[in-house]
Amino acid sequence: MTGAGFESKIKTVEWMTDGSFSRMVNQLLVPYEFKTVDIESSQGIYDAIKTMVVRGAPAIGIAGAHGVALAAIELCEEECESRSAEGATAFAQFKAKLLERCEFIKSARPTAVNLSWAIEEQKSVLEGISGIDEAVCALIDNAIRLENEDIEINKKIGDFGAAVVPKGATILTHCNAGALATVGYGTALGVVRSAFAKDNAIQVFANETRPRGQGARITTFELVLDGIPTTLITDGMCSYFMEKKMIDLVVVGADRIAANGDTANKIGTYTVAIAAKYHNIPFYVAAPKSTIDMSIADGSKIPIELRDREEVTHINGKIICAPEVNVINPAFDVTPNELITGIITEVGIFTPDELRKAF
Amino acid sequence: MTGAGFESKIKTVEWMTDGSFSRMVNQLLVPYEFKTVDIESSQGIYDAIKTMVVRGAPAIGIAGAHGVALAAIELCEEECESRSAEGATAFAQFKAKLLERCEFIKSARPTAVNLSWAIEEQKSVLEGISGIDEAVCALIDNAIRLENEDIEINKKIGDFGAAVVPKGATILTHCNAGALATVGYGTALGVVRSAFAKDNAIQVFANETRPRGQGARITTFELVLDGIPTTLITDGMCSYFMEKKMIDLVVVGADRIAANGDTANKIGTYTVAIAAKYHNIPFYVAAPKSTIDMSIADGSKIPIELRDREEVTHINGKIICAPEVNVINPAFDVTPNELITGIITEVGIFTPDELRKAF
Repeated sequence: MTGAGFESKIKTVEWMTDGSFSRMVNQLLVPYEFKTVDIESSQGIYDAIKTMVVRGAPAIGIAGAHGVALAAIELCEEECESRSAEGATAFAQFKAKLLERCEFIKSARPTAVNLSWAIEEQKSVLEGISGIDEAVCALIDNAIRLENEDIEINKKIGDFGAAVVPKGATILTHCNAGALATVGYGTALGVVRSAFAKDNAIQVFANETRPRGQGARITTFELVLDGIPTTLITDGMCSYFMEKKMIDLVVVGADRIAANGDTANKIGTYTVAIAAKYHNIPFYVAAPKSTIDMSIADGSKIPIELRDREEVTHINGKIICAPEVNVINPAFDVTPNELITGIITEVGIFTPDELRKAF
Repeated sequence: MTGAGFESKIKTVEWMTDGSFSRMVNQLLVPYEFKTVDIESSQGIYDAIKTMVVRGAPAIGIAGAHGVALAAIELCEEECESRSAEGATAFAQFKAKLLERCEFIKSARPTAVNLSWAIEEQKSVLEGISGIDEAVCALIDNAIRLENEDIEINKKIGDFGAAVVPKGATILTHCNAGALATVGYGTALGVVRSAFAKDNAIQVFANETRPRGQGARITTFELVLDGIPTTLITDGMCSYFMEKKMIDLVVVGADRIAANGDTANKIGTYTVAIAAKYHNIPFYVAAPKSTIDMSIADGSKIPIELRDREEVTHINGKIICAPEVNVINPAFDVTPNELITGIITEVGIFTPDELRKAF
């Protein structure tokens, strides 16, 4: 009974077999409009990831896989037109160029490991293949497989996670690790969905998540759509509600989990984790195995993306501060393992200490 | 050498003797416009406090004192017109109505004790007075005295506080406890101004302070105006910079300090205090003695104002979330004494434990 019978109404990223392109929800418009955009080139995928038309670690992974398939289609067409080489040479040229484009797509955003994970999954498909057409088909098939698997993985995460949600609990979450951060069910909000399917007294407090407001814009949008009671709070308010015993547990997503359990997630997560520890409130990270990066010993080695000052100084195009002020805008922070109660994956819940043995 | 020679360029609330009215900076327009508004009635003062044309605990105290003076002028004029009674009876009627208006002005905002403190200061002036004209003059004089004293008190707070600021320190502050929260120098930002006057390597990190953005709108405005290096961050970022050892101490203002040192201040302060404790960073509260409420044993008894949902759901008039979402919007939180390193007042710095003996 994965997903506890709860079907999300959202498909965030979808490969369109009838036309061979990627269709994704344009998340820059949420909650004002709910529109999809069709992306037909690998450059378009890079841009969509970079500008956050698509965001959320698992979703940008799948978008990246789509990007590799689109790159393969483009290179196949170029090859058809130029016919500069034949047979093994043509394939070698194709493959070399494809690997270059893989690196380019990877470079769109550095912190979430799911992007490079999905691209490595695509690259591994090329092993044992020697024809361009065959490679194109295999990369499309694999992109579709990863996309479908993502929802199944999320439902498993949701069901494992639901087991640690007390009856009638209020769950605090930060940013959006929901249907719109994945293909369609969510990691942290997958836990919420599975818990709510079993117990409709569950409710959510959503941190607005400045500067980009994914909690306000996206989490409230998708939870209201699914009829799950949700209260929007500003990021600084979380401790107030914890002290009043109005928060029973925290569940957030992750962009990269180091081997020791240190977890990079949206900026502000670390502050919530410290507040949860101070109030003895369980703090869970919900993420697929693909978010765990065993090649990184601890969180200090996770690259943290710095983004434009305008994300902090402007809201909806209007400046909110003295124009001359300095800004530093890290998009992520690292929550140390000592603040994490458990990491909820599709194969079970692990304490940070247990990761090294399990993966 | 109070104020270390540093003169603030701002006069937030000012009694205009040439015309007998209150002139205040309209803080709803900052940082877009820097304009004053003239308030000529006690109802106007109530509205200005309630809608946050004037905000900041010490500033609303002075505005309240102005309101009492305006109420006295209004009642004097009513009495002149009606002549319903004479002598002692007239004064008794005047006084009774004035005390009613005092309670009305007090009710504009419940959390900051400075408002009721200033109104009690005005009420005490009436003792020993038996004539209406005499009362009006005395209330105006006392309002001007409180206004002038506020700047002197702030400079003393600044100078005491500057002594605990390490050389070249970066000071994190939350909300605005600056010139625009007081008559003209600031409490937390008074400490910054006095420290900067001695050491121009001092810099400030300003939490934007959602939902009303006083840190982004007002703190960056007044610090940039004074040439003090300032970096704007979102509220959730503070722990990131603390962990990177980029914050040396936290200094915030206060709206009410209980007898045990528990401190109500702008929502989000408590979260910063928890983060500071986790990183072993000193956390100071800077406030005049008038903010200390010895009648309240601990923070649990401090009334917390709940404000409109639109402050959370809308920014600059535009909605930022699903319209159907729930909202709870407490304007303040209480930082428990165990998280407070020291309370910086105009008569020295005290640990929370020392308050009961000192006041």
